[in-house]
Amino acid sequence: MNALIGKTGVVVRTIPRAPAEVVEALGRLGVATVHEAQGRKGLLDCGLRPIQQGIALAGTAVTVLVAPGDNWMFHVAVEQCRPGDLLVVAPSSPCCDGYFGDLLATSLKAHGVRALVIDAGVRDSQTLRDMGFAVWSRAINAQGTVKEVLGSVNLPLLCAGQLVNAGDIIVADDDGVVVVRHGEAASVLHAATARAELEERKRLRLAAGELGLDIYEMRPRLAAKGLRYVDQLADLEQ
Amino acid sequence: MNALIGKTGVVVRTIPRAPAEVVEALGRLGVATVHEAQGRKGLLDCGLRPIQQGIALAGTAVTVLVAPGDNWMFHVAVEQCRPGDLLVVAPSSPCCDGYFGDLLATSLKAHGVRALVIDAGVRDSQTLRDMGFAVWSRAINAQGTVKEVLGSVNLPLLCAGQLVNAGDIIVADDDGVVVVRHGEAASVLHAATARAELEERKRLRLAAGELGLDIYEMRPRLAAKGLRYVDQLADLEQ
Amino acid sequence: MNALIGKTGVVVRTIPRAPAEVVEALGRLGVATVHEAQGRKGLLDCGLRPIQQGIALAGTAVTVLVAPGDNWMFHVAVEQCRPGDLLVVAPSSPCCDGYFGDLLATSLKAHGVRALVIDAGVRDSQTLRDMGFAVWSRAINAQGTVKEVLGSVNLPLLCAGQLVNAGDIIVADDDGVVVVRHGEAASVLHAATARAELEERKRLRLAAGELGLDIYEMRPRLAAKGLRYVDQLADLEQ
Amino acid sequence: MNALIGKTGVVVRTIPRAPAEVVEALGRLGVATVHEAQGRKGLLDCGLRPIQQGIALAGTAVTVLVAPGDNWMFHVAVEQCRPGDLLVVAPSSPCCDGYFGDLLATSLKAHGVRALVIDAGVRDSQTLRDMGFAVWSRAINAQGTVKEVLGSVNLPLLCAGQLVNAGDIIVADDDGVVVVRHGEAASVLHAATARAELEERKRLRLAAGELGLDIYEMRPRLAAKGLRYVDQLADLEQ
Amino acid sequence: MNALIGKTGVVVRTIPRAPAEVVEALGRLGVATVHEAQGRKGLLDCGLRPIQQGIALAGTAVTVLVAPGDNWMFHVAVEQCRPGDLLVVAPSSPCCDGYFGDLLATSLKAHGVRALVIDAGVRDSQTLRDMGFAVWSRAINAQGTVKEVLGSVNLPLLCAGQLVNAGDIIVADDDGVVVVRHGEAASVLHAATARAELEERKRLRLAAGELGLDIYEMRPRLAAKGLRYVDQLADLEQ
Amino acid sequence: MNALIGKTGVVVRTIPRAPAEVVEALGRLGVATVHEAQGRKGLLDCGLRPIQQGIALAGTAVTVLVAPGDNWMFHVAVEQCRPGDLLVVAPSSPCCDGYFGDLLATSLKAHGVRALVIDAGVRDSQTLRDMGFAVWSRAINAQGTVKEVLGSVNLPLLCAGQLVNAGDIIVADDDGVVVVRHGEAASVLHAATARAELEERKRLRLAAGELGLDIYEMRPRLAAKGLRYVDQLADLEQ
Repeated sequence: MNALIGKTGVVVRTIPRAPAEVVEALGRLGVATVHEAQGRKGLLDCGLRPIQQGIALAGTAVTVLVAPGDNWMFHVAVEQCRPGDLLVVAPSSPCCDGYFGDLLATSLKAHGVRALVIDAGVRDSQTLRDMGFAVWSRAINAQGTVKEVLGSVNLPLLCAGQLVNAGDIIVADDDGVVVVRHGEAASVLHAATARAELEERKRLRLAAGELGLDIYEMRPRLAAKGLRYVDQLADLEQ
Repeated sequence: MNALIGKTGVVVRTIPRAPAEVVEALGRLGVATVHEAQGRKGLLDCGLRPIQQGIALAGTAVTVLVAPGDNWMFHVAVEQCRPGDLLVVAPSSPCCDGYFGDLLATSLKAHGVRALVIDAGVRDSQTLRDMGFAVWSRAINAQGTVKEVLGSVNLPLLCAGQLVNAGDIIVADDDGVVVVRHGEAASVLHAATARAELEERKRLRLAAGELGLDIYEMRPRLAAKGLRYVDQLADLEQ
Repeated sequence: MNALIGKTGVVVRTIPRAPAEVVEALGRLGVATVHEAQGRKGLLDCGLRPIQQGIALAGTAVTVLVAPGDNWMFHVAVEQCRPGDLLVVAPSSPCCDGYFGDLLATSLKAHGVRALVIDAGVRDSQTLRDMGFAVWSRAINAQGTVKEVLGSVNLPLLCAGQLVNAGDIIVADDDGVVVVRHGEAASVLHAATARAELEERKRLRLAAGELGLDIYEMRPRLAAKGLRYVDQLADLEQ
Repeated sequence: MNALIGKTGVVVRTIPRAPAEVVEALGRLGVATVHEAQGRKGLLDCGLRPIQQGIALAGTAVTVLVAPGDNWMFHVAVEQCRPGDLLVVAPSSPCCDGYFGDLLATSLKAHGVRALVIDAGVRDSQTLRDMGFAVWSRAINAQGTVKEVLGSVNLPLLCAGQLVNAGDIIVADDDGVVVVRHGEAASVLHAATARAELEERKRLRLAAGELGLDIYEMRPRLAAKGLRYVDQLADLEQ
Repeated sequence: MNALIGKTGVVVRTIPRAPAEVVEALGRLGVATVHEAQGRKGLLDCGLRPIQQGIALAGTAVTVLVAPGDNWMFHVAVEQCRPGDLLVVAPSSPCCDGYFGDLLATSLKAHGVRALVIDAGVRDSQTLRDMGFAVWSRAINAQGTVKEVLGSVNLPLLCAGQLVNAGDIIVADDDGVVVVRHGEAASVLHAATARAELEERKRLRLAAGELGLDIYEMRPRLAAKGLRYVDQLADLEQ
Repeated sequence: MNALIGKTGVVVRTIPRAPAEVVEALGRLGVATVHEAQGRKGLLDCGLRPIQQGIALAGTAVTVLVAPGDNWMFHVAVEQCRPGDLLVVAPSSPCCDGYFGDLLATSLKAHGVRALVIDAGVRDSQTLRDMGFAVWSRAINAQGTVKEVLGSVNLPLLCAGQLVNAGDIIVADDDGVVVVRHGEAASVLHAATARAELEERKRLRLAAGELGLDIYEMRPRLAAKGLRYVDQLADLEQ
């Protein structure tokens, strides 16, 4: 599979898709919880930011490799999308041009896709927000692109520092974007749900004023590491 | 004219101004459309970002060259402004200090100016939003400036990677900022209007689920370039 | 005191705190005014940005030095906080991991702390906004941290390019963050109040259309520096 | 295999190694040629720069995942190295601390390893150059690290935007770093050798003054795209 | 002329060229002196760095606009070059791919061109140094480019924040790159020569230990601005 | 003392200076060793880079605060320098202009100063190297500066993220720059010498092929943390 990363000129028609209820449940749990639950892996570079605020979702990755300054493959990708999919796009070398705008969003939306994760720029940003089409991108940039060079659709892809396979689940919210392997979706959902419940119990204790020092029994370990308390700064300055 | 770029110590009193209806129409069409309509030129570096959201406008450029950390020329520039103008400011070397705040905005507003494009920083950002004074800047920064060194007003200027002449039309929205030459305003408006109408027709077809692959007749050209469809990733791995 | 900057393994229990009314008054005056009033010093690097919009406040600094990718000291710090305090956190080497999320915010809020300034990343950003817990940070990042390495609490700290002592007053709003020395709080408040009143008078004159050139009597000094007015650009090109 | 990326707490003892003569031949061909020969894939982010000048080499990747600010796994990795290996190191979240210095280089050299590729910082840079130990890194930084948190050795790794597997071949020179899949080493060597020979023939023709326009028969295609020649700039301005 | 900036699809065959002795004399004076002598204008963004050390030169600009990730226009440009020319290349949107390597350098050298200024990346960097072909670039990057999209040759160009016209003189050394207008070459040379002589006289006095404070008679002006001398830091702390 | 950071308009004439042999010994030990020996504090931001290679030195800090784009205070500072001093310069807000060139270097050299650390840019870089005048800077930039605004000399200063007091010792080499408090110079020298000797002994063992795992007795602690060895990657994939 390794040898396919970065390959161009190919479209894969059939990809695995996790059950919709699993994908949606991951989206409700959010990026930070899912990232923790799968052992702190799969987080995309925090330079990818949402163009909107307050939207959290998940979808099945349709992967798109594009050439710098060239958005031709978006049109090829639309045809491969199914409702519940989410486009994950990376340029073959770093580029912040505005690959994507409201026309492509209209087309994707018509096919049931309502979000884009792109390691590059987008434009028509206000219209995209008005349409409710969610985007995580590296830049907002009106710079146009051409349609001359082939990329690929649904091959494994390096996007913002992570490997993404077509069929992996993408979770995105105001904190960023995380990828969950297709084959791990159920177990990650299980672990993330457990974690969220555990956190809820901690939240109640913390809200009541209990200290993490006590809840997590940190004092002995801090002391063993040598943490020292003094009353005044002046006590240290002699 | 070339020799005037970067020159200091001069204020030009009279500048050309395009008809208000042309300028306003360009503002309604927005940055991405205008940028495309004039052949993908004139776009300022996407590091200039709006401090507000959802405002799109256009104005006639009054250009201001300032020294790093010195905002003296703003006061000189205010006197040269007319209603409908927009200040375009660049430092003579890169600087992100807060050149501009609510007092200068109050002064500009009193003279009919309601927007600033600056390749540097501004401050009092929340007050500026409350006033409805629109800003596109490289930074938000409370750092103050001095008033010691001359710059220029209404000479040609390099701002965020583009040449701007006093009298050029500046279009700005959530996607960024684009400059239209004074002499091309009418023809760009014509082309941009046509483009917007064409896009509207495409939008309807895309919204109905038609594919860009078909609307733009891309399939034969993709095939000629060698694009290959396979059913499964596994088909590639043998 | 110098020798304590960067020291680890120590918690100081008692810190000076300025009167609440002084702190709150500084918060109402805002970052730009306070920064000016104290002679343009103390401004943190403008890379620290609010994760929310429209919140301005001030608090007493509880300082926290943390190791890269390690948020253990937050739990130690909570115990040292009093209502009206504000956490100021810096990593011992640059790091943008997500040190802080909604559980720690819940804990701090339960102890009367409602803001964080951190030269690193935070997560659960939307929940923090929903809770009304204000944050100024370098990044939003879901990346988790560990609890293995000691830092310090309430020692002097370098944060985003400024020295912060426990007990200093931190003023933060949409423009950024500024530190006021504990010992200068009253005099800075006095100067900032005077400045704000002066600005209010200037604002009225500027809003009425008077020019800064006249209000500040700039014309003679501009002329002395050699500023020249011409009618047309063409006058310069001969 | 995907699920192993980012996993910690594991060391793999046995990795595949390509024949030394294949690895060395790839090193002599250099990064640009190898990158082209394998279809323009596998190039690490150009932010990784050599700390020395004029050294080109290749080696078998021993992969090391480290925590931010923690270099413990280097010591674990040394034991797994064989002559001809090259260490490829990535932190689990971005960090530019100085993970590596002359002591670790001495240890690696004693085990036949003479180069390091690291998506982080190194120190003792002048000593490393004096020792002839080659390094490609994101930063030079004296900042020390701790030994508290487990990473992994010889699991697949994301380094500077590329996936690297233990046993892959790393080629590095003044242009940067490229990874060649273990299973593709022989075919890439074949293609790269052919490319180098072809380039040598072109070089002779170009050195004799022939134009690429003619050698590559570009003129008809340029004309078909609409390229237009004019005698003077003035011809365009009417 | 303004309207031609950013235009594509055109090659201009005839450009003005300053006398070789003027160009060479500017090259000997160096970037800092020439920049000062022409009133501190024309300096390209300091992100353009030499790939070699210790080379200072000047040449006549042949300008090349290229698409992102596309180096086709280099081949068109070679044909337009004459001995003493220097290629100035900018992408139409930011891109750091490796547009240029040893084959193109061989071709340019065969036509008397020995330097390149490019607001993008180059590769084969060690070979370029060995050939004595000088380069100022934004990056060193092995990433290859395609040949699909037209740009332009010898139109006015925005490169690294400055306007460059074909026929302008480019001066480059270890400090960076500055552009001198064709029409100002003689007068700038005159001013720069005078400045260099003046500096030589100052250098002798400074080398003898005289203070700039005295040579430039700064003391009265510093005192007038309020500069105060104290004997000890403690004198300020009371 | 805190209140003096960022103050302008003052020059302090008398500063403490550590014995020359202490300063020189620190310079020979180098940045990484000194940084470790003083508890990993005092390291300036790694964005400050040497403009030369292979020079390691130390000196007594003469501190200079300058306005953005204004190098007037350099001339004031020269008069305060003694042989063995080193200039430490920071702008009051971020600026990469070329504050310093060969004339100022000539003047400093005539007064026994042979190095500069500046959180900004310098020019005449090749001449500075030829003169043997060492510089650590954030940029090389020909951009000139003015002489209009007062800063300060020998007040405490924030430079590249660290507090520097006049009289502190600055150690600089190819790894970067570290500050040692005047009052800690002797004890840091003692600790750094001991560390260097210890490292020398370790180096011999490592050079002989002993593993750090054994020398530092890491195996039990790694096992306790859960590190697991497997023979093959395949063993993990079942």
